[in-house]
Amino acid sequence: MAMMTGGEYLASLDDGRRVFADGQEIKDLSAHPQFATALDLIAAGYDEHHRPGEDACGPYFAIPRSRDELKRLLEELLHWDMVTVTTSQGLLALLTAAARIRPSSEEYARRIEAYFEYCKDNDLRCVQAITDAKGDRMRSPGAQDDPDVYTRIVERRPDGIVVRGAKLHISSAAVSHELVVMPTKKMKPGEEDWAVACAIPVNSPGVRIVNTNYAPRERTPDFPHSSRHNMPEGFVILDDVFVPNERVFLAGETEHSATFAHSLGLWERLGGTAHLVEIGDTLVGLAQLIAEANGTERVSHIREKIAEMIIYATLVRAGLEAAIANAEPSPEGWYFPSELFTNAAKHFGAAEFSAMVRHLHDIGGGSIVTAPSIADLEHEEIGPAIRKYMRTKEGVDGEYRTRLFHAIRDYTADAFGGWQLVTMLQSGGGLYAQRLVARKHYPMDKAKALGLKVAGIPEN
Amino acid sequence: MAMMTGGEYLASLDDGRRVFADGQEIKDLSAHPQFATALDLIAAGYDEHHRPGEDACGPYFAIPRSRDELKRLLEELLHWDMVTVTTSQGLLALLTAAARIRPSSEEYARRIEAYFEYCKDNDLRCVQAITDAKGDRMRSPGAQDDPDVYTRIVERRPDGIVVRGAKLHISSAAVSHELVVMPTKKMKPGEEDWAVACAIPVNSPGVRIVNTNYAPRERTPDFPHSSRHNMPEGFVILDDVFVPNERVFLAGETEHSATFAHSLGLWERLGGTAHLVEIGDTLVGLAQLIAEANGTERVSHIREKIAEMIIYATLVRAGLEAAIANAEPSPEGWYFPSELFTNAAKHFGAAEFSAMVRHLHDIGGGSIVTAPSIADLEHEEIGPAIRKYMRTKEGVDGEYRTRLFHAIRDYTADAFGGWQLVTMLQSGGGLYAQRLVARKHYPMDKAKALGLKVAGIPEN
Amino acid sequence: MAMMTGGEYLASLDDGRRVFADGQEIKDLSAHPQFATALDLIAAGYDEHHRPGEDACGPYFAIPRSRDELKRLLEELLHWDMVTVTTSQGLLALLTAAARIRPSSEEYARRIEAYFEYCKDNDLRCVQAITDAKGDRMRSPGAQDDPDVYTRIVERRPDGIVVRGAKLHISSAAVSHELVVMPTKKMKPGEEDWAVACAIPVNSPGVRIVNTNYAPRERTPDFPHSSRHNMPEGFVILDDVFVPNERVFLAGETEHSATFAHSLGLWERLGGTAHLVEIGDTLVGLAQLIAEANGTERVSHIREKIAEMIIYATLVRAGLEAAIANAEPSPEGWYFPSELFTNAAKHFGAAEFSAMVRHLHDIGGGSIVTAPSIADLEHEEIGPAIRKYMRTKEGVDGEYRTRLFHAIRDYTADAFGGWQLVTMLQSGGGLYAQRLVARKHYPMDKAKALGLKVAGIPEN
Amino acid sequence: MAMMTGGEYLASLDDGRRVFADGQEIKDLSAHPQFATALDLIAAGYDEHHRPGEDACGPYFAIPRSRDELKRLLEELLHWDMVTVTTSQGLLALLTAAARIRPSSEEYARRIEAYFEYCKDNDLRCVQAITDAKGDRMRSPGAQDDPDVYTRIVERRPDGIVVRGAKLHISSAAVSHELVVMPTKKMKPGEEDWAVACAIPVNSPGVRIVNTNYAPRERTPDFPHSSRHNMPEGFVILDDVFVPNERVFLAGETEHSATFAHSLGLWERLGGTAHLVEIGDTLVGLAQLIAEANGTERVSHIREKIAEMIIYATLVRAGLEAAIANAEPSPEGWYFPSELFTNAAKHFGAAEFSAMVRHLHDIGGGSIVTAPSIADLEHEEIGPAIRKYMRTKEGVDGEYRTRLFHAIRDYTADAFGGWQLVTMLQSGGGLYAQRLVARKHYPMDKAKALGLKVAGIPEN
Repeated sequence: MAMMTGGEYLASLDDGRRVFADGQEIKDLSAHPQFATALDLIAAGYDEHHRPGEDACGPYFAIPRSRDELKRLLEELLHWDMVTVTTSQGLLALLTAAARIRPSSEEYARRIEAYFEYCKDNDLRCVQAITDAKGDRMRSPGAQDDPDVYTRIVERRPDGIVVRGAKLHISSAAVSHELVVMPTKKMKPGEEDWAVACAIPVNSPGVRIVNTNYAPRERTPDFPHSSRHNMPEGFVILDDVFVPNERVFLAGETEHSATFAHSLGLWERLGGTAHLVEIGDTLVGLAQLIAEANGTERVSHIREKIAEMIIYATLVRAGLEAAIANAEPSPEGWYFPSELFTNAAKHFGAAEFSAMVRHLHDIGGGSIVTAPSIADLEHEEIGPAIRKYMRTKEGVDGEYRTRLFHAIRDYTADAFGGWQLVTMLQSGGGLYAQRLVARKHYPMDKAKALGLKVAGIPEN
Repeated sequence: MAMMTGGEYLASLDDGRRVFADGQEIKDLSAHPQFATALDLIAAGYDEHHRPGEDACGPYFAIPRSRDELKRLLEELLHWDMVTVTTSQGLLALLTAAARIRPSSEEYARRIEAYFEYCKDNDLRCVQAITDAKGDRMRSPGAQDDPDVYTRIVERRPDGIVVRGAKLHISSAAVSHELVVMPTKKMKPGEEDWAVACAIPVNSPGVRIVNTNYAPRERTPDFPHSSRHNMPEGFVILDDVFVPNERVFLAGETEHSATFAHSLGLWERLGGTAHLVEIGDTLVGLAQLIAEANGTERVSHIREKIAEMIIYATLVRAGLEAAIANAEPSPEGWYFPSELFTNAAKHFGAAEFSAMVRHLHDIGGGSIVTAPSIADLEHEEIGPAIRKYMRTKEGVDGEYRTRLFHAIRDYTADAFGGWQLVTMLQSGGGLYAQRLVARKHYPMDKAKALGLKVAGIPEN
Repeated sequence: MAMMTGGEYLASLDDGRRVFADGQEIKDLSAHPQFATALDLIAAGYDEHHRPGEDACGPYFAIPRSRDELKRLLEELLHWDMVTVTTSQGLLALLTAAARIRPSSEEYARRIEAYFEYCKDNDLRCVQAITDAKGDRMRSPGAQDDPDVYTRIVERRPDGIVVRGAKLHISSAAVSHELVVMPTKKMKPGEEDWAVACAIPVNSPGVRIVNTNYAPRERTPDFPHSSRHNMPEGFVILDDVFVPNERVFLAGETEHSATFAHSLGLWERLGGTAHLVEIGDTLVGLAQLIAEANGTERVSHIREKIAEMIIYATLVRAGLEAAIANAEPSPEGWYFPSELFTNAAKHFGAAEFSAMVRHLHDIGGGSIVTAPSIADLEHEEIGPAIRKYMRTKEGVDGEYRTRLFHAIRDYTADAFGGWQLVTMLQSGGGLYAQRLVARKHYPMDKAKALGLKVAGIPEN
Repeated sequence: MAMMTGGEYLASLDDGRRVFADGQEIKDLSAHPQFATALDLIAAGYDEHHRPGEDACGPYFAIPRSRDELKRLLEELLHWDMVTVTTSQGLLALLTAAARIRPSSEEYARRIEAYFEYCKDNDLRCVQAITDAKGDRMRSPGAQDDPDVYTRIVERRPDGIVVRGAKLHISSAAVSHELVVMPTKKMKPGEEDWAVACAIPVNSPGVRIVNTNYAPRERTPDFPHSSRHNMPEGFVILDDVFVPNERVFLAGETEHSATFAHSLGLWERLGGTAHLVEIGDTLVGLAQLIAEANGTERVSHIREKIAEMIIYATLVRAGLEAAIANAEPSPEGWYFPSELFTNAAKHFGAAEFSAMVRHLHDIGGGSIVTAPSIADLEHEEIGPAIRKYMRTKEGVDGEYRTRLFHAIRDYTADAFGGWQLVTMLQSGGGLYAQRLVARKHYPMDKAKALGLKVAGIPEN
């Protein structure tokens, strides 16, 4: 019942969890290059937030009760490691679902609130586990060759349920404590076994996590960003995992299935938009820095491209601000962001992201992928020559400029960059999902009234 | 010292003004088809706002003193006729300039405030007159073949100045009372004669206004929007017009020249963005209405296009809201919108406008330009056949659908639509100008710091 | 059995045809402003092509028998009036269908060839009449409230058939001789009555044409293009029209229904692409001319936009050339263009068209919609002032520049421009149809083999 | 004077060349992971093309003498390794320059032809070395802090010249025999020392090459493409390298400097366009394969995106075909492709490339970056579970689908993908350069004539 330190967090992972990568089981996460950076980041986050005392709790356990609190939460979130972000998002998504399914499912709502307190009291880290394997996309869960491709209840006991399935794209799963399991989409009558939401400790019997990671295996200065910021991506297998009743939040009520998915989508897209704002500004900054280093910052077509990047970053920010400014309270007094503005902003930010990366590549030039290694810069014979030729003018030495090129490559044109390109597009469910939700929450009646006014046709 | 009624407004235009159109001088504006609709709209606006009493004044003379007041102003503005909008925008632009040039030019600031009170007391309508003829764009005002292509002071007298030049694209000039003249751009030392801002009554000796109008000459139901909403565009010639000192707001101080242009740009783009929000929603409404009338509203590619239009309209709205939410007060306590968000939103709205119109045309189909006239619908022999074939299903009769097509054509694919296409792009100075101002007000230092962080390079 | 002169053509229209516009029946087409320009253009075309002798025939009746002949045809087509273009396209579409339905329908193919000879021998002008009224887009022809919303056979007689329905968007119908009627889409078994193709003289009993026209009612120099180039758009009503067997090309064979529609689509899109090439070059020319007139042709962002317009026009041209270079012969030795390249080029040209117009508007400036009338230029008092202020520099006088603005407005931002905007998008069936056909004709197996090669997966 | 085998090629590299990577000098290229794949590919290419006999020579030494030969060359080129491609392109660029500078520089043209024969006779591999270090982009070569940032002649001797500088982004330099050195841009009078073109053997004293490589260090099936296709990128340092007269092709004639750069640009963009055609088809293939594997190939928005990718690939192909079909012969009878179509096609292909990658990522889904390793698939415990959950339906097993995801990640969202993203944009000089050249070669007079025709203004 107290906050953990970084050391305590690292010790807490020695809990019997089953983690795999590159064809092997990983017994000591901290010794493996796929996990080292992630553990460092999370442990540092624990240390930074740590305050003594039994009542202390992290700011990531705050429930916003006004638009200002929501705004502050979004600002703080940018400084947290990813698993701390998912802890906040996952629990707020659960609470949003609780508010939306209450009062018809008061008991589930109560369990969710209790689970929130449990995580807070124990300073745990959670990830949301939503995307199922899905099998053939044209068939519903019950019509698949293999019924397990959507996570389902395989047994109902008096004291709980047993679940089987797989959850994909679960960033940080291997280095967190709790899996917040939700149904991936709306279920229909007859699909009761697939309408399941619950919370599962990572070290539960039957849980196995297979990991990939976009990170460089060696931490070299040629990867200035990804060597310091990366998280494993988990493929989570749930092989007949028992979940006690107190941790079960949905078990068959198909009418609430979509509520969980939408609640998560809302917070994931809001968080994604907040990150896109920062990433947008970062792309602008890199573009301006490399233009100045190349001596092209006053060239007209370069300026125009940077201006377009500025407008992009500013509009995503405007969308985020509007999503917060138009937040509405639940009956509990919890503030949830505007679905319409959140989805519109996330869509725009994601859809135009690759065009902004293209601008950066156009501005930077070919050295983004051909600049010699920092190790070459330090070579006795060739180092001075590289410095000589990578230098451009007074104040821009060759090493500084080379490092900028590596930063741009690492951030946008190498393994991390590729991961980011796909993730910006897919997080929160892809462009299609965002168009769907935006359409659903748009005040179409008002728009149609405007259209009829232009046509001179009276509304009836 | 009281508000005018519509009738008083119409009478007030019989003041000796010189107005031309189609190669002829127009003696009675209200009898001419180019001006009839505009006069109806403005007179109706006077009547609607009219309140008795000496202290009464229109809401368009309000100076916002908080973000909420600014927001309310923008909402009201959408319901005003264009010359009422320009009255508000032009005077707020002047006041913005006053705040920015004070204290070095306290006297000018005082005159502006006095002029504002004068317009308010007399319930006048003003237009901002900014764009000069400009001659060869590659040469500065003083280097032109003809020095008059930028409006300039040709004589300085003890009691005032004499100005000569032309101001272009002055919507509603012929039906307003006052021309708020401003310099079109930054002037340099040596260009003192071109650094001139002042207020000129429309009926001053030497003022002549040549008009064009996108409006249909006959008010038929085939033009359901433009027959009810149009304004003449004025080409204003200033032929040695005398301006008394009290109406002179800049007369040679080149360092302040750009301040007027930027102040006007800010308000014009803000107002333009507010209109783009409404126009965006209107395009969505027309798209949804015609899709429903065609029976295609559930066709996937139609839904996707409407979703893109929704996201467009919502993002422009987000930009407007952020421009207001980030407004800052002047020392006088007047709230001016954020330059960064205003320009980013206006740029996005204007740049993507033609793509949204394309979506509407793609959704609507060829009948947008080939639907028979409403007059044909009323023809005894062919009317029933047209109704039969323009009908699609229960609830969508042929006349209703035909009217929708005419609305779309009138609004986006005929004379008014063409005017709107160009005007959305050019109002507030074109895309280039908006990129320029957005770049200028963007927090680039912060973005560069983010870029350096990615590169692992310490800031110095 | 000889070619007609312009005069003979005009006389030939006095044949009892029923034509309506603006709520009235038009008895004398040549006296009505909606038709005057069209008649002038077509008559001039007759005179220009006219050669004496019984064997003479117009080049628009040529069937290309090599890629070079096809290329030449496309070049000539750009110089023809619209109804001469549709004569060529409509008949080639019929011949394409003939080649595709032969041998199973040898008799229909023979009739088509005979009909082609008939039109050639009598130097007639034809329009293709394809788009049905369509009713509710979600229901098939047989499931509509009103069975006539798709043109259908209402009676089968020994000597012919009787058809009823309406055909929409039929440009030039009122000023041509022949309606080439085709089914609008694929019909399914049970929809035999709607699988009908035939040729109908415009003056047949039961045919009535309701017209609209984007043209200015008065031919003034403010409309330099549309006053010289416009065609009426016809809404064609077929009210129980008898068609003799020799003119019937399909009457119930649902399996061939789509063949006619696809054949027409191919030629219409090819012709549309050829026009887009010319229109693309015209937009570039107008952009460069107005930039030079404004003195901005060397401004960087203007140059960039013109370069983008150049690349657009050049790529559409490349697509057209590839469509011709990849043409394939039918068994008859007739060369038909590549479906894949034709549809890809038309899609690109249509989809990006509005963006090119936007560039032109961005480059030109607000005077596109606010330039005074040419009549004002000729006014004694204000004419000289307008010339003074519209002039920019040595070699660019005010009248020349004003005329350029009117040309841009007329061509892209007024009634004709709006018609062109919609027509470029919708001709040949809208963007969706072009994507569909491009996908169908793309060598997907080859692309999948390339994908498998990247994946290192052997094809099986 | 005979063709080399793969073995002879590998032996030929043991010639004293100085090659560096990752901070170390590489003595045995074939033993180093950065070079292994490249050497395999090139050696295989030698073996495949090898024919015995003194007169045998590779098809990459052909000079196209008709449009058909040019077309065939472009088709063959797609099957060659990169250094064979650059051998063809570099030598054709030299010959193009020879044709363009003749007759004023007959001696240089003669040396180029002789050098071409020398490379052919000895079956050598060449790379073009053009991009200089460039220093401050705002200053000309002579005005830089360091005169060496543009490669220059530091000494002129009776028997040759001595050059100093660096050439950047030289793919395959370390594994080729010859550097074809050209000036990076137009030089002005006074910049004679920087107007230098010549041929330098890679093992010349003073040449050092620092390499980077986007390739994975281990050849695993998680990198199915890049483990089999990669080339080192060379940063080439020329430290006072002596070049004998017979190998000097320009040494001070500034008026010809741009000719070399433009000639190379033409061939590089043509080759780049040919590759973009194949890459475009590959992206389509991957999109279709993964859609089929996911079971989404009939989902409307997926089909639309694939159709857009098809249109993209087809238009780039159309541009390539038009560039070849519009090729013109030099006085020597050598066929050079159309500058206009080559640049337009390359611009379009490069500008839209990232949007096509975005489509593929949107279609594929998050498993592109989160699919478990192939090694995990082979793990006894978790392998079966991964296969179970990655499977979607009959005919799509889990391993096949996992391999597709790795292919997409490797090809577009990892180190190779990032390299390709930047390279497609930057090869041949970036978007700006392609716009510039397209504008220069566009028939603007014809376009202006079309514009004047619309305006009704007679040409003079």
